[in-house]
Amino acid sequence: MTTTSDRPVSRRGLLTGSALATGGALTGAATLRLTADGPGAVQVPVAQVGGAVEPFHGARQAGVATEPQAHATFVAFTLKPGTDRAALGRLLRLLSDDAARLTRGRPALADTEPELGLLPARLTVTFGFGPGLYAAAGLGDRRPPSVAELPAFRIDRLQPRWSGGDLLLQICADDPLTVAHAQRVVIKDSRPFAAVRWVQQGFRRTAGAEPGRTQRNLFGQLDGTANPTPGAPTDAAVWVPDGPAWLRDSTTMVVRRISMNLETWDLLGRTDRELAVGRRLDTGAPLTGTAEHDEPDFAAIGPDGLTVIPDFSHLTRAHVTDDRQKILRRPYNYDGTPTADGHADSGLIFTSYQADVTRQFLPIQRRLAERDLLNEWTTPIGSAVFAIPPGCPDGGWIGQQLLG
Amino acid sequence: MTTTSDRPVSRRGLLTGSALATGGALTGAATLRLTADGPGAVQVPVAQVGGAVEPFHGARQAGVATEPQAHATFVAFTLKPGTDRAALGRLLRLLSDDAARLTRGRPALADTEPELGLLPARLTVTFGFGPGLYAAAGLGDRRPPSVAELPAFRIDRLQPRWSGGDLLLQICADDPLTVAHAQRVVIKDSRPFAAVRWVQQGFRRTAGAEPGRTQRNLFGQLDGTANPTPGAPTDAAVWVPDGPAWLRDSTTMVVRRISMNLETWDLLGRTDRELAVGRRLDTGAPLTGTAEHDEPDFAAIGPDGLTVIPDFSHLTRAHVTDDRQKILRRPYNYDGTPTADGHADSGLIFTSYQADVTRQFLPIQRRLAERDLLNEWTTPIGSAVFAIPPGCPDGGWIGQQLLG
Repeated sequence: MTTTSDRPVSRRGLLTGSALATGGALTGAATLRLTADGPGAVQVPVAQVGGAVEPFHGARQAGVATEPQAHATFVAFTLKPGTDRAALGRLLRLLSDDAARLTRGRPALADTEPELGLLPARLTVTFGFGPGLYAAAGLGDRRPPSVAELPAFRIDRLQPRWSGGDLLLQICADDPLTVAHAQRVVIKDSRPFAAVRWVQQGFRRTAGAEPGRTQRNLFGQLDGTANPTPGAPTDAAVWVPDGPAWLRDSTTMVVRRISMNLETWDLLGRTDRELAVGRRLDTGAPLTGTAEHDEPDFAAIGPDGLTVIPDFSHLTRAHVTDDRQKILRRPYNYDGTPTADGHADSGLIFTSYQADVTRQFLPIQRRLAERDLLNEWTTPIGSAVFAIPPGCPDGGWIGQQLLG
Repeated sequence: MTTTSDRPVSRRGLLTGSALATGGALTGAATLRLTADGPGAVQVPVAQVGGAVEPFHGARQAGVATEPQAHATFVAFTLKPGTDRAALGRLLRLLSDDAARLTRGRPALADTEPELGLLPARLTVTFGFGPGLYAAAGLGDRRPPSVAELPAFRIDRLQPRWSGGDLLLQICADDPLTVAHAQRVVIKDSRPFAAVRWVQQGFRRTAGAEPGRTQRNLFGQLDGTANPTPGAPTDAAVWVPDGPAWLRDSTTMVVRRISMNLETWDLLGRTDRELAVGRRLDTGAPLTGTAEHDEPDFAAIGPDGLTVIPDFSHLTRAHVTDDRQKILRRPYNYDGTPTADGHADSGLIFTSYQADVTRQFLPIQRRLAERDLLNEWTTPIGSAVFAIPPGCPDGGWIGQQLLG
């Protein structure tokens, strides 16, 4: 592989993006555009993913609208007895400080492995508040009503080991060692206040492997095609636009662990798979179209007199036309240890962000639970809901609008 | 992030390396040199790690001398009763064909998720033969004598769930989805012949995060500084130079799962850690030097009258001066699920490759087991030894010299 010398940053180095190789943290500088050469000049992402920084501070938390990183760990905590509003304030000050440092490529204050804290690799640490946190703080009246256990769905086979939680830390980065180190730091600093309830580790394509492409899950499907596009409609769908300071610029998060039965899925032919999904497996195009982002035509009738896209396809049941009712998905794959007879322990850590769980997520989930062909091969085995409170300015801490 | 258009490869695209973005598999083209601009022209690794290919065919297997990829899974199998020499031939033909295709970015023949087979990301699939494979084939006389269970060491706390195995597939790539898909393919194709005995998944820094740097483990130590450098001495240390066709260009592999106790390690001050290792934590320099690759001076005496590098330091006990006696290490970190009270399940999947386990690995391991300060914080919990047979030409299969 290439070695990059450690000499001082030259103007040429900056221009070519190689300044990242020196360990300098250049916000958002993970790509560069080569000299323009007519329309559509070639863009080459720089592989110095280690130095890239996602800002921690801001009105909204990072890790939601952030282009998904390659690796994620989701750590849910149960607050210990006695972790009241004041203690929560101390915990969240501490964790916010850890996050502010690590996301910049600086070790945490009490970092016992400071050398592992030097590569941010677009690290984000996103804080989620479960229903129990509001109760522990004596602030039940400030809990967004939709931040509560989801109603039971008949498809659910939920396991306590993947469900619930008072506090969530979603840790994402393009480097797995960076994620492991950040996880270790925040778990250690949480110990006086909270016990680890569950941890889920997931992955997507590595940084730069398929830039700009929709990801595939372990069924081989493109997953996330219908996400709202960045800009105004997404903003309205994802972020709470007004209200008191602890609500404005907040969002909510649903985490569902979806076991995917690769054994039975693999017995299915491609045509049946495509009918179950409503999309082509290769291009991701709806069965009535030719390209991934073509608008599906649910009324189109095939030669057999049936709709081309089956009424119970995943696409049909999940489809949302109004951008403001959409949910922002940010799924990660998981792949655990197979059994002795080779059965996979694979699936999806489904996460969605939406201004209101009840208004946006639940209608979709009800339609899917009621009648989605894909349910034959997928089983929800974990579920949790969190408020994602607003961000904080430099020097502030996550949760200060609520608890401060 | 950047999107790269899908138009045909232009000459400019090829020159800048962006041809990789089109999904074409260009062997070894994962880096490019920008226009020379005097001495030390800047090298920018191209982030299109998805398209990079490591050749599967050759006299020696890939995945040993190959620059370590970011992700690895080690799958050990137990042969089923009846998997004899002929059946092993069928199994290994099938798996070799899978590996030859997937490492080129082509789906396996029976691939049920062919879209997941298109990004090789430097995939390597390395085959290892455990003692039981030779027995099953009725070829016990061809088993290299050192390919056998290691002698027990007093530091061992070996668990069957991480130990032994008749057949090993080491699957490495710079992309975790590529690794997961290849694992799934080879496990499915092995089912008629073998049961999954254990699976270990590990990671290093992501591709391009720290090019050319020695990796750090979860103790924060640089790990691998003393590896033999590529070239003739390494060749002699790693590869069997002559003998019958099933031995020439083979090597042997030791896999040890080393649990690292982060809880007690974190209680230790930096000075004590550095004395235990014999190296500085920041630079990796021996305590008698200033740079990582400085030769340690084991005779140097400090002001207290003791050797500067403690006699029982890891560096002292592991040190090998003769290049031909060295072992090639290729370690991966693992990070499992922490306990409710936040204790990490972390450690190292230690792998070493050497021409002869008895001559090279065992003397080092005996010295470490007898007296290595680091033993206080590390515990071997898994162990296995495999022969890594020679490679095969295009159209051939791994193991054909032994079984064909």
